[in-house]
Amino acid sequence: MDFNHESMQLHKQLKGKIELRNKFEVNTQNDLSLVYSPGVAGPCLAISESPDKVYDLTIKSNTVAIVSDGSAVLGLGNIGAKAAIPVMEGKAMLFKKFANIDAFPICLETQDTEEIIQTVKNIAPVFGGINLEDISAPRCFEIEDRLQDIGIPVFHDDQHGTAIVTLAGLINASKVVNKPLNQLKVVINGAGAAGIAIAKLLRCINQNSDMCQAIDQILVCDSKGIISPDRSDLNDVKKDLLGYTNKHGISGNLNQALKDADVFIGVSKGNLLGKNELALMADSPIIFALANPEPEIDPILAKQWGAAVVATGRSDFPNQVNNVLVFPAIFRAALEVRAPVISSRMKLVAANAIANLVDHPTADTIIPSALEAHFVADIVKAILQDEKENT
Amino acid sequence: MDFNHESMQLHKQLKGKIELRNKFEVNTQNDLSLVYSPGVAGPCLAISESPDKVYDLTIKSNTVAIVSDGSAVLGLGNIGAKAAIPVMEGKAMLFKKFANIDAFPICLETQDTEEIIQTVKNIAPVFGGINLEDISAPRCFEIEDRLQDIGIPVFHDDQHGTAIVTLAGLINASKVVNKPLNQLKVVINGAGAAGIAIAKLLRCINQNSDMCQAIDQILVCDSKGIISPDRSDLNDVKKDLLGYTNKHGISGNLNQALKDADVFIGVSKGNLLGKNELALMADSPIIFALANPEPEIDPILAKQWGAAVVATGRSDFPNQVNNVLVFPAIFRAALEVRAPVISSRMKLVAANAIANLVDHPTADTIIPSALEAHFVADIVKAILQDEKENT
Repeated sequence: MDFNHESMQLHKQLKGKIELRNKFEVNTQNDLSLVYSPGVAGPCLAISESPDKVYDLTIKSNTVAIVSDGSAVLGLGNIGAKAAIPVMEGKAMLFKKFANIDAFPICLETQDTEEIIQTVKNIAPVFGGINLEDISAPRCFEIEDRLQDIGIPVFHDDQHGTAIVTLAGLINASKVVNKPLNQLKVVINGAGAAGIAIAKLLRCINQNSDMCQAIDQILVCDSKGIISPDRSDLNDVKKDLLGYTNKHGISGNLNQALKDADVFIGVSKGNLLGKNELALMADSPIIFALANPEPEIDPILAKQWGAAVVATGRSDFPNQVNNVLVFPAIFRAALEVRAPVISSRMKLVAANAIANLVDHPTADTIIPSALEAHFVADIVKAILQDEKENT
Repeated sequence: MDFNHESMQLHKQLKGKIELRNKFEVNTQNDLSLVYSPGVAGPCLAISESPDKVYDLTIKSNTVAIVSDGSAVLGLGNIGAKAAIPVMEGKAMLFKKFANIDAFPICLETQDTEEIIQTVKNIAPVFGGINLEDISAPRCFEIEDRLQDIGIPVFHDDQHGTAIVTLAGLINASKVVNKPLNQLKVVINGAGAAGIAIAKLLRCINQNSDMCQAIDQILVCDSKGIISPDRSDLNDVKKDLLGYTNKHGISGNLNQALKDADVFIGVSKGNLLGKNELALMADSPIIFALANPEPEIDPILAKQWGAAVVATGRSDFPNQVNNVLVFPAIFRAALEVRAPVISSRMKLVAANAIANLVDHPTADTIIPSALEAHFVADIVKAILQDEKENT
């Protein structure tokens, strides 16, 4: 309560957590003429003749739009564009702090897929990248897919940020429990933005790479149970999952999925995993209970009941799956190389780089802290190195 | 040449003239939790319950979008969205410097009227106002008109900024030549964005106010001559002009319009007014030669040939009609009172306030300099005072 009060007070006092700053001081008539009319005509004409110069002469090369329609904000749900602004401002602060990227919140008055796509295309010229944020599934998949050809990277952080950090944690967790990553049997509970993206990344979908350690024993559950071929209620995105998960065509509920599973990844809702469910799993189970603010299982109880490694979405427990570990770095790298898309390869490299930030993984340190110095620089370096060697 | 070189070098060096800045330093986990998840949930929910709190808890109350489609950029024409960015960044700098407003450039990949309108509506939630910029006529009129009901002020600076400063100059010029403002015979040459807006403001169209000194002897010319009832080639915007200009239904070319005119306002192109044309005008003619970079008449020659007062759009001659005199102040005032529109009344008050900044108008000082201290504060004060007394 006191914490909420403190946050409200801070927001009232600041009236906006970010502001613009001029990078050049305008004091004289000559200054005015250099940055505005008539001096600005030179840069304008240069870009008009060679559009790529927009990266050298404007803010584009360092500017990202944080685009949301307010339809799936934090754990708050569909609270709309205006109510989403404080989140997007906060995200902009993290972009600035961790990667010195100028990110600007664009909160949309529409939740129509076509209009969102068209609006993002229309506003693209001034941005070097688009961070989609807090857009509900399944619309978020189509919106992101159909924006992949606009020439600048479009990255839905709720999907891929979570997926990348989860994979990073899983890489280290597999070392802790001494089981090979690619032989883990994984259950993902939740088939929303994050669940689908995690499945895709673990399976290296859209990915052709020697570094890929595809995990091919994956079951995804939604609230009706395992996503399986005998289900008649699947939307297109869930149908697609059948192409790369559930290779034995198992049907049933979450408990049936958990039988002998090595890993539970929850991106669903609080308190749905108990002692009995944990007992169904293989030895030394790995638990990612990522629902916020209430994890799928209390991490302390999970340990008591036999979990070997537990990660959550919360900062007050070990192993926080925190997107800030990835989005500043992956956008920084993408901007540096002017990548037209953020490829699956970049995502995998980022996951491995995050995993490598932990020197000696233990049950309580499979994921590095977002407050460690230099983590962004290390991840950026790994991505740039890989881009250099493989493009 | 050297100046152009200096501007190009500056743009290359800066790689964008503006940047974002965090208003609160994020150092600890607690800081992170206050500005982002989970602390941000409080402000989000507060806005979700009472949407107006968006003004108290986010950047909206101090943030303006500078929206352009790049179709009519400075004197450069239709150079497109990317090439327009340096201008919009420069404009953002002026917003910041003169009124401490955070203005962000939104350059649109589309020049379709419907798409521009829809896009502006869609991105409106985060902004407290929209400055339309460098959008070509006649599309700019429909775009601005149809955005007047979105709840935040939408102001096309190329129209109204120019019109307001022109009226301010004319108020003082009428004192210099000792002719009553409302009896001036005015010729406006150019029926684009600025020409139409000047005609409307001088005629107090859409305006009901005791402070209005309507000038009712106005002729507007386009490249084909006087806008008159016998013309069959008029678009809707020019047809509308017939309702409040040319009350005697005169037809003919510019020279016929100039006969006995007291004022020539050129928003057209360079070097079309000479000694013979000036001789057609009434005694002590007032000349606003606003074409850039080449005015309709060289101001020094104009004086030699009998002009009593000359204003231009250039900073290297006296009496610069410079929009920076108005847009920072009028947006500052509109944001302060959370005006849903910038009314004609506010425009007239601004024009009078700008005129009043000059204590003793002379032929060379009908318009104040944009580098004078406090001019923004004085104009804002005048608008706020009037809003307080008249709403």
